Amino acid sequence: MKKVLFLGLFFCASFSLIAQDLRVEPLNWWVGMKNPNLQLLIKGKDLGGGVVTSSKKGLSVRKVTNADSPNYLFVDLIVEAGAQAGTYPLVIKKNGTVIHTVNYSLEARANNSANRPSYSTKDVIYLITPDRFANGNPANDKVAGMRDMSLNRGALYDRHGGDLRGILDHLDYIKNKGFTAIWNMPEVENDQTLESYHGYGITDHYKIDRRFGTNEDYRELGMKTQANGMYLIKDIILNHCGNGHWWMEDMPFKDWINFGGKFTSTTHRRETVQDPHVSKYDAKLQTEGWFVPAMPDLNQKNPFMQQYIIQNTIWWIEYAHLGGLRIDTYPYSTKEFATMWSDAVINEYPNLNMVGEEWSSNPIITSYWQRGKVNRDGYKSSLPALMDFPLQNAISEAMNENDKEWGKGLNKIYSVISNDLVYADPDNLVVFGDNHDMSRIYTQVKHDQALLKMAMTYIFTTRGIPQVFYGTEILMSNPKSSEHGEIRGDFPGGWAGDAKNAFTGANMTADEKAMQAFFQKILTWRKGAEAIHKGKLLHFGPENSGEGNGVYVYFRYTDKAKVMVVLNKNAEARAIDLSHYEEVLPAGSKAHNVMESTDVVFGKTLSVPGKSAQIFEIR
Amino acid sequence: MKKVLFLGLFFCASFSLIAQDLRVEPLNWWVGMKNPNLQLLIKGKDLGGGVVTSSKKGLSVRKVTNADSPNYLFVDLIVEAGAQAGTYPLVIKKNGTVIHTVNYSLEARANNSANRPSYSTKDVIYLITPDRFANGNPANDKVAGMRDMSLNRGALYDRHGGDLRGILDHLDYIKNKGFTAIWNMPEVENDQTLESYHGYGITDHYKIDRRFGTNEDYRELGMKTQANGMYLIKDIILNHCGNGHWWMEDMPFKDWINFGGKFTSTTHRRETVQDPHVSKYDAKLQTEGWFVPAMPDLNQKNPFMQQYIIQNTIWWIEYAHLGGLRIDTYPYSTKEFATMWSDAVINEYPNLNMVGEEWSSNPIITSYWQRGKVNRDGYKSSLPALMDFPLQNAISEAMNENDKEWGKGLNKIYSVISNDLVYADPDNLVVFGDNHDMSRIYTQVKHDQALLKMAMTYIFTTRGIPQVFYGTEILMSNPKSSEHGEIRGDFPGGWAGDAKNAFTGANMTADEKAMQAFFQKILTWRKGAEAIHKGKLLHFGPENSGEGNGVYVYFRYTDKAKVMVVLNKNAEARAIDLSHYEEVLPAGSKAHNVMESTDVVFGKTLSVPGKSAQIFEIR
Repeated sequence: MKKVLFLGLFFCASFSLIAQDLRVEPLNWWVGMKNPNLQLLIKGKDLGGGVVTSSKKGLSVRKVTNADSPNYLFVDLIVEAGAQAGTYPLVIKKNGTVIHTVNYSLEARANNSANRPSYSTKDVIYLITPDRFANGNPANDKVAGMRDMSLNRGALYDRHGGDLRGILDHLDYIKNKGFTAIWNMPEVENDQTLESYHGYGITDHYKIDRRFGTNEDYRELGMKTQANGMYLIKDIILNHCGNGHWWMEDMPFKDWINFGGKFTSTTHRRETVQDPHVSKYDAKLQTEGWFVPAMPDLNQKNPFMQQYIIQNTIWWIEYAHLGGLRIDTYPYSTKEFATMWSDAVINEYPNLNMVGEEWSSNPIITSYWQRGKVNRDGYKSSLPALMDFPLQNAISEAMNENDKEWGKGLNKIYSVISNDLVYADPDNLVVFGDNHDMSRIYTQVKHDQALLKMAMTYIFTTRGIPQVFYGTEILMSNPKSSEHGEIRGDFPGGWAGDAKNAFTGANMTADEKAMQAFFQKILTWRKGAEAIHKGKLLHFGPENSGEGNGVYVYFRYTDKAKVMVVLNKNAEARAIDLSHYEEVLPAGSKAHNVMESTDVVFGKTLSVPGKSAQIFEIR
Repeated sequence: MKKVLFLGLFFCASFSLIAQDLRVEPLNWWVGMKNPNLQLLIKGKDLGGGVVTSSKKGLSVRKVTNADSPNYLFVDLIVEAGAQAGTYPLVIKKNGTVIHTVNYSLEARANNSANRPSYSTKDVIYLITPDRFANGNPANDKVAGMRDMSLNRGALYDRHGGDLRGILDHLDYIKNKGFTAIWNMPEVENDQTLESYHGYGITDHYKIDRRFGTNEDYRELGMKTQANGMYLIKDIILNHCGNGHWWMEDMPFKDWINFGGKFTSTTHRRETVQDPHVSKYDAKLQTEGWFVPAMPDLNQKNPFMQQYIIQNTIWWIEYAHLGGLRIDTYPYSTKEFATMWSDAVINEYPNLNMVGEEWSSNPIITSYWQRGKVNRDGYKSSLPALMDFPLQNAISEAMNENDKEWGKGLNKIYSVISNDLVYADPDNLVVFGDNHDMSRIYTQVKHDQALLKMAMTYIFTTRGIPQVFYGTEILMSNPKSSEHGEIRGDFPGGWAGDAKNAFTGANMTADEKAMQAFFQKILTWRKGAEAIHKGKLLHFGPENSGEGNGVYVYFRYTDKAKVMVVLNKNAEARAIDLSHYEEVLPAGSKAHNVMESTDVVFGKTLSVPGKSAQIFEIR
């Protein structure tokens, strides 16, 4: 599809209007959507009071609403049953005179679009900072006319030049390493003055940032991941936009942005959402307060804003062949809009997985948002998946704490996963050691490769959907600081002339290559591991003392397959007593050691090397 | 009622039996109980195979069961409807010969016994270590024939001589300070070799430890608290006994004690109870493992043990006019027995409050056990109340942490209380700063009297039922160590000859007297404070910066009464912006400062003195 931006050209005897651009959003729509309703935002000078008519059968005008600004019309349309793909002229008249004709495009949907599959426990997500992964097209590193003209790989918060072409060029690398889904930090336009590289300050909801490429490039990425049996996951921001957004200079409604468009900080008090004792004062500040002055907070109570955001999400899914969503700062949305939005998306794509970011280490808070949870206040969420921040926190503590202390070390993982009773669907939690907003996991484990392997083995074998931040597989870290710009480092080899190249192996250290091989091996195995995809989890608490101290053992099992994982955090080997596991591991079981590619027959005890994670397929 | 221990005297022509004691438990029972069934444990040499008959109408024998040991009979009786109080002879025959006659007593119940009221949000509980509060009867400090003959007030784990008479002597002090309920650490016999003073190693379920007094003394305490509108709360131990228990030498059944009567440690993994991924191995160790070698773990799956424990609880309630229960180590019981026990008690005393100890700072775990909680695994608990360990932990952290750090200081309280959505009944949580098992609150706040007042003001005004460890009102602390014996110090004035006397005020410091006066004032006010007893809680998060940082404001309100509490942890006074609270506090409200006994009219801001807790009755 081409970018749709129509010119309304006209002449008028009684008064003169200069030919002008109209902004029409969504850029197009599709026939055959479940919901026949569509609401266009049309922006153009003095549109207010305009009358809109459709002359072609298949698309009818239900209602036209004037905004507070005279330069907008909101047009409610109905895509009629049986409407064919094609161009539908919408005529805008004022005082009986045609002032614009919008040739609106309704397209045909791709095969199986509504029932597309999505990422699941079978998948492993690769999280990419597009500006920092690979620069496939140096010609778009700077784009004339955009506000942030920085380009300096040596500066943490300048643009580095990475783009969608870079990701497309290295899709084979990602696939080959065993990742099956890609979650990019937002790729849409961020025409912001400063720190535009991160993508969270949207300035045009319908346009890929030109420094990342074009809408077509993004669609190509969606189609290629799909063709490779992979999923492209879009990072969706419901809560805010960038202060460079095109609508900031002329907002359709006075209440388009919270707090009258003036910066008022959110309190980041996610507790307010669930708290039975909450004050209105705190609740309002949490959802209506802004993240930062550069990110105006969208008024999700405005029904036109609601439709705008919902349709924008659906548009990208349909347009770019998306395989799933990740939703930024989920608890900063109003509860009502969060559910309205999820319901609308799921109505069109019932299998689509959507994971919300609720950065709390308290499972009471994260679980509140998962579809199926029976909440005491009656709130029903429709969000299928949550980021498992409580487990992330536990993994990090587990790797760093002394297992000899009560409740510390691997006990943290054991305890946190025991909280799974609060989740409606623990298998649909995304499990990770780090992401783009926190210190890299290799730094979290103090650059101990054995601990990194242990943490990643855990992430890849416990319940849920693993997510890896790009570069973890080659020991990327942030030893200097935990600044965002530092964490989101350049992937070596992504730029022409990079001495080190992790795509080819050139100039990589033996340790980096070994870790890359570890990822490839474990993730390739994981692709076929039914017990990991579908199995129940059964775990055994680390013991308070003795050989089992600092050792965590768990099983994943279905009727057909069984996997045993042993984490030994002690420096020395431990001989664990296999009789403890007899409820799931019959005496004398035969097993295959996945990472060592050896076969074993279990005796009474099992010697587990120090600081190691062992995966056994029980046969 | 007198202690009932019957002698069966008899002669026999064909063989000679020496006249011997019989142990019959429960010691007696009552007519008019809701449950007509009663099961007697009768212990005596070679009782096995005995036939038991009742010759008096009103009490009938339903079934007699032999135990594994030949020296027990379990006799199921029915107290028939309309049975009169009196003595009922039960004849035990063997081989056709009468070997014993038990004159079993059924007594009349006290008025309104079944519907007795119990402690609630109107009350404040005073927790006492009976050995360490007051020595009312020096004659019983050592009792000949008991295993622990220690008596040394200078030794942390020896007996100090405190007793029930001491508590009875000072009931007026307790009442006068504003406490309305007394929870003693267990008073039943602990004929243990070592550390018998604490009471958690029961050696006779039906007998007050003679060093504390007699059953009659205990009953007197129950009746006197009742007569004073107070409640006596008994500390009940369902999970274990002492290894000096009379039954340990000749157990009725082989499975009477878990793990075959041999010490196997519990793992203290309370997660196992709720964990959907739990192994049978871990679950069994948690509930069947022993606390310590000196405390054998009772097999709550044995139906005779079940009845024994249930009847023992009911016996003490009825006998001693109890006003409530506290249940020790609740999650170490099997879930099934925990509910069976609570159901049986509530069946007889529907208003009785019972608070369980689940020492976890995770509300997911504590809330699991509260009556009315809809648990994902379908478990239904019948326990009305829980100790609020998560809040205790938060209060302690709140008082010690820097409020300028994100999520720290008073924010801890705000966050933890926001979790109340997980509880079926947050108002029926017991709120405390310390207890007999942890460092005293005055030590927790590093001997800062302003912080102690703040913590206690919070405890006395938030939702729930406050509990105070004896001596907190006179600044008792444990600066030397957090050893249990240190924490459970002697109350000054409890012993004849004590130079310092907190009952009379003799030789007390000005600080101690001032704190005592603070407790008396706030608790006396609390007795009549409807908003605290019944009011909803509405709170406002401490602000991230500015005047409201380190300040926590909350309201308790009903239709008729409203109380505002302001905690300012900053060293300096803060001027808080009252407009933040306008949803509950109309501009220009009139208020009474409870602790300062002054009246104020609120302006735009309110100046709150540094490190202070202010209570305002809004009028």
